[in-house]
Amino acid sequence: MKFNYYMPTKILFGPGKLNALAEEVLPGKKALIVISSGGSIRKNGYLDRLITILHNQDVDYVVFDKILPNPVKAHVMEGAALAKEEKCDFVIGLGGGSSIDSAKSIAVMAKNPGDYWDYISGGSGKSLPVPNPALPIVAITTTAGTGTEADPWTVITKEETNEKIGFGNESTFPVLSVVDPELMITVPKHLTAYQGFDALFHATEGYIANIATPISDAYALKSIELIAKYLPICVQDGTNIEARTQVALANTLSGFVESTSSCTSEHSMEHALSAFYPDLPHGAGLIMLSEAYYTFFASNAPERFTAMAQAMGVDIETLPEEDRPMSFVKALVKLQEDCQVSDLKMSDYGIKKEEIPSLAENAHNTMGGLFELDCYTLSLEETIEIMTKAYK
Amino acid sequence: MKFNYYMPTKILFGPGKLNALAEEVLPGKKALIVISSGGSIRKNGYLDRLITILHNQDVDYVVFDKILPNPVKAHVMEGAALAKEEKCDFVIGLGGGSSIDSAKSIAVMAKNPGDYWDYISGGSGKSLPVPNPALPIVAITTTAGTGTEADPWTVITKEETNEKIGFGNESTFPVLSVVDPELMITVPKHLTAYQGFDALFHATEGYIANIATPISDAYALKSIELIAKYLPICVQDGTNIEARTQVALANTLSGFVESTSSCTSEHSMEHALSAFYPDLPHGAGLIMLSEAYYTFFASNAPERFTAMAQAMGVDIETLPEEDRPMSFVKALVKLQEDCQVSDLKMSDYGIKKEEIPSLAENAHNTMGGLFELDCYTLSLEETIEIMTKAYK
Repeated sequence: MKFNYYMPTKILFGPGKLNALAEEVLPGKKALIVISSGGSIRKNGYLDRLITILHNQDVDYVVFDKILPNPVKAHVMEGAALAKEEKCDFVIGLGGGSSIDSAKSIAVMAKNPGDYWDYISGGSGKSLPVPNPALPIVAITTTAGTGTEADPWTVITKEETNEKIGFGNESTFPVLSVVDPELMITVPKHLTAYQGFDALFHATEGYIANIATPISDAYALKSIELIAKYLPICVQDGTNIEARTQVALANTLSGFVESTSSCTSEHSMEHALSAFYPDLPHGAGLIMLSEAYYTFFASNAPERFTAMAQAMGVDIETLPEEDRPMSFVKALVKLQEDCQVSDLKMSDYGIKKEEIPSLAENAHNTMGGLFELDCYTLSLEETIEIMTKAYK
Repeated sequence: MKFNYYMPTKILFGPGKLNALAEEVLPGKKALIVISSGGSIRKNGYLDRLITILHNQDVDYVVFDKILPNPVKAHVMEGAALAKEEKCDFVIGLGGGSSIDSAKSIAVMAKNPGDYWDYISGGSGKSLPVPNPALPIVAITTTAGTGTEADPWTVITKEETNEKIGFGNESTFPVLSVVDPELMITVPKHLTAYQGFDALFHATEGYIANIATPISDAYALKSIELIAKYLPICVQDGTNIEARTQVALANTLSGFVESTSSCTSEHSMEHALSAFYPDLPHGAGLIMLSEAYYTFFASNAPERFTAMAQAMGVDIETLPEEDRPMSFVKALVKLQEDCQVSDLKMSDYGIKKEEIPSLAENAHNTMGGLFELDCYTLSLEETIEIMTKAYK
């Protein structure tokens, strides 16, 4: 048992915690605030609340409000140019994973020369070493899905080549994150479900990854337990602050899993889908893949599935030993039914069955590294087999 | 549910991990290396290995080798003066909790004016704000007991007044810690047990503290489980590297508990004992107090005891509900028997029964803050009652 542990982000967690940002020492005097192009961050008053807090601390700011749900490299470069021009000395991501991930990537490019893809490993990325640490990053999350507030990872799409690839280093951990479930109340039903399942899969993938540690396991099992218990309640009644808080905690824990273990090839496959079909929400893509994906692994590498089933609430003692691993998959399908997302279809987003081989190839080419962290090494053929089984 | 989470230390964990320090960027160019006066760190070759690593990285060093098992303020001030004189820009604590805690306090005083006790809260401490952050701290632990490698706390005794008080702030988290169970192989049987129980009590106190969070709970229950399972094996056979590794992990997790929850009044009581009787090892003092302490709380605030019993391996399903909280205490006593430490007596260390009221008063005066974190608020009389019951 050997591992490195590192998760240096300070996290302010709980309902109303955005207000506590007022008492924190911020990591600079001028912030680039990164928000989505959708308008909800302004409409819900979150931007005004943040600006008031900055104002009271004599911190200046510029707003960059172009981020798309599947964030793109062009906006990373544009945001970084703005940060440089305006002499911002830190970056605040306010919103969902797309805004916070963009904030991270912008923070990298505000301090480094060249193109963002110069530093990307995989696909057409040049894998160059990053000369300088990123600007300090503050994350204020308004969703419970990506866990990005508690990990160093950012996922950006290069539109020209349909590559959606993760990146991160020690400087892209947020220095400070706010997880305030009150900011999540307005997330609509279907996005609540998609995001909750994204968090779930960070935990389950991190649990079955071959670099899992006893510490990441503790985070993962707790996250799985909380999502199984509280996500259906959140989907049913988005104003239930207790359920929102528990799912927000699960999501932050799944960020801890990302920091201490890793995603697996499920994420590579999904990134291929949403790189080519950017209207497909990442969480929805994962849900579409999940039954086939976990069925394959429960059959070929069943060791860790029983503990996950138990965390999902399955009374495994009542089951014969050989049925226990697959009981996780059954519980997963049931959870998708309870969260009203069991009918999602790739075909509804325009994905064609005959494209699956090339999408599987994209998954291997752009994020092949994650396949090496699986507990069973998938060939391209097996990847195609899983994705084909998942196709509806 | 509201809390702040912060545990920024990077931890290199596992057998042989001291060697991995060679690949890390160290936080300075000249280290003050803080070790105990006992000679074992030199004798076991640990100091030479560290010096070789520093040498290969062109990092200069000075050794300060005066630390006592119960470390004292005089050595903090002397170490800090040496660090200033030698222009050290970081401090390495190499050894057990006493050396690492001293390294932390020295790092504070190397950057701040006046006397260390100016910054201490409680007792004769002046509670002054600390003007400057500490020098960066690196911790290399050779024991599994205090968890100090994964928390910001340091406990130092002011000999003149018999005050043993904790201190810490955001700058006293180690920036980097090495937890290499191979360095723990030489710890003798009785110290292995004392230290293991110290780690256990960090977890149990942090679990019953009124500021516990779901995250600190996950750390605490895992730590309790690992200690109950592996400490007797370590005590039996100190060369069992698997058991040493699991106990080292439990100890690091109990440091996480210290960072995210807190010790309770059990530690205040013990600090009173070992402040007046510095030959009493801290872990031994805790063991002496523990049966009476947890019996009192299992009766007066039983809510969290059943989960701790379960983590200790008790099959609680077989017990009537009213017996479950106390089953933790029974498991604790059994563990002490298994680890050959159930016969420890205060009287063997010279403590007199008639001193207990003044020792209880010292506990309230010097570390009264921890009493406020108990799940039931102890009066001075109840503190005396517990300590008297613990007296043998």
